[in-house]
Amino acid sequence: MDFETVTYGEKTNSLVIIDQTLLPGETRFLSLTGLEEIDEAIRSLKVRGAPAIGVAAAIGMAVLANRIDTADYEKFMRIFGEYKQRLASSRPTAVNLFWALDIMARTAAESGPAVETVKQNLLAKALEIKNHDIAVCRRIGENGLTLLKAGFGVLTHCNAGRLAAVKYGTALAPLYVGAERGMAFKVFADETRPLLQGARLSAWELTQAGIDTTLICDNMASAVMKSGRIDAVLVGADRIAANGDTANKIGTSGVAVLAKHYGIPFYVCAPESTVDRNCASGEEIIIEQRAAAEVTAMWYKKPMAPNGVRVFNPAFDVTGAQLITAIITENGVFREFGGDGQWR
Amino acid sequence: MDFETVTYGEKTNSLVIIDQTLLPGETRFLSLTGLEEIDEAIRSLKVRGAPAIGVAAAIGMAVLANRIDTADYEKFMRIFGEYKQRLASSRPTAVNLFWALDIMARTAAESGPAVETVKQNLLAKALEIKNHDIAVCRRIGENGLTLLKAGFGVLTHCNAGRLAAVKYGTALAPLYVGAERGMAFKVFADETRPLLQGARLSAWELTQAGIDTTLICDNMASAVMKSGRIDAVLVGADRIAANGDTANKIGTSGVAVLAKHYGIPFYVCAPESTVDRNCASGEEIIIEQRAAAEVTAMWYKKPMAPNGVRVFNPAFDVTGAQLITAIITENGVFREFGGDGQWR
Repeated sequence: MDFETVTYGEKTNSLVIIDQTLLPGETRFLSLTGLEEIDEAIRSLKVRGAPAIGVAAAIGMAVLANRIDTADYEKFMRIFGEYKQRLASSRPTAVNLFWALDIMARTAAESGPAVETVKQNLLAKALEIKNHDIAVCRRIGENGLTLLKAGFGVLTHCNAGRLAAVKYGTALAPLYVGAERGMAFKVFADETRPLLQGARLSAWELTQAGIDTTLICDNMASAVMKSGRIDAVLVGADRIAANGDTANKIGTSGVAVLAKHYGIPFYVCAPESTVDRNCASGEEIIIEQRAAAEVTAMWYKKPMAPNGVRVFNPAFDVTGAQLITAIITENGVFREFGGDGQWR
Repeated sequence: MDFETVTYGEKTNSLVIIDQTLLPGETRFLSLTGLEEIDEAIRSLKVRGAPAIGVAAAIGMAVLANRIDTADYEKFMRIFGEYKQRLASSRPTAVNLFWALDIMARTAAESGPAVETVKQNLLAKALEIKNHDIAVCRRIGENGLTLLKAGFGVLTHCNAGRLAAVKYGTALAPLYVGAERGMAFKVFADETRPLLQGARLSAWELTQAGIDTTLICDNMASAVMKSGRIDAVLVGADRIAANGDTANKIGTSGVAVLAKHYGIPFYVCAPESTVDRNCASGEEIIIEQRAAAEVTAMWYKKPMAPNGVRVFNPAFDVTGAQLITAIITENGVFREFGGDGQWR
């Protein structure tokens, strides 16, 4: 099945997304047209993944703008501003969300005063953001593919695949670009507790794409690596410091330690926009602590941990640059990370 | 709450166990008196953990023998043999089960022909096996405690605690013996996917004993170690080769690699009976592969992995001896593992 995770529905002037809260049990596409449902879709993680959220916000604003029923530019801009503010509150820490909303606001401000022109420019800009995401991910895929050979066993953690972007994704982009050229890979997907993005999302999108995929529990990565099945590790990144230290889904640093122990290259795939050159090292990155129930109860039919047990549930961890073989962006493959942000 | 995981109910002539399939949601003790219910309790994992199964089989045979209503020794031995055969089929690979049943059969054979004497000797032998288990675990605890200091942060994987034995357990024995002396520890329990023995059992028994316990997902061990919270790792063992290579619950080898990376001592705690000196190294240990549904569906309210995805689900992995700081048995603390089985 070929699809875009986030796109524009031309016939119905809608934001079209795949509902990720229903995966992998049900594959349902939603056409969203109103403020309430677009806001709710982002808020409730029906669309998730930093790039995908940014694109969804941009297309969402274009869709909403098209429905503002006035030729009065000032009135239009007032309503547009309210919408923007509402969507900005949907995910408080999503950098791509604010980035996309700001671009859309600037476009509206620069396109007046003819409301029809503003609407056209907003839609054009949203589609540009979407196409830029696809192009960046494809470049990451091309660059990453230079490090892989057909038949490679590849381990991945969490979901940095097409479901986190529009198409291709980041960590999984080299696999999709390779598959387009007929290269076969054997992918092992960590289930990624507690939220199971690997089992629910990566395993789903990889099998949908016809890629040979094996699901494992996180604690099986050591045995799989030891058995010789893994030739490379591909993961995404939530934030990369100037020195290459990488914050990503909890468990990533453990996979990196294992890869080093077993002599397997460990690659981080991410767009340049993920690199925060104002952040000197991983020590400056604050890690979000999440609710205990995600670990103890959320998915389960019956109690799986004693009532009231203390739980440590960090959403991310930091992988030291010394454990990273290379960072792959749309601009190339970098193996040395100068603390001044100069990479080679 | 103080309790023995497996014991003899004198008033009702019964095998008394805590039903581990109901933990941690419900704490229920069962008094089992008939062949069907004793067999079913072992088969369905109401009692599990190699030492606990052995003791349950021994006490179970004594209970059943007491109910054989004949003074005819030959008839008694025929029925006793049928019971033994039935219990031997309950867990096909449980070494302690066969070991305990064989001791009980030998006791019966050597105690005839007075059936009352046989019954008395069987019960005495079963209680001896139980008390021996408690004593061995306590020795492991004493020996392990020489490696710990009050206030230590300790990480454990799976359940090698009192629920896997009668009292104390193996990996957790040093913590219980230390706690008796007023030493406080901060324990981090890996939840241990896919069967969640860490969340369901270790976290339960540790919190019941008033020990400071924090539950983590398996993939959080790296972040917790990196944060400086862990001073030692304690795990059990299912089988230890002559050279020290140790088969234990899947994920153990990954914890060992992490511990080595972060400079944290990694201790294996197990009775001497776990050491198989006929097994030269871990390469000879065959690892059981288990059902995919344990990973994809078993505990969950809704589908958590795509239909039909391939799953790798090994029950155990092998930790190379070079990753093990020491193996602790009832006979001492061993840091060098001669391939000839000579340990120091």
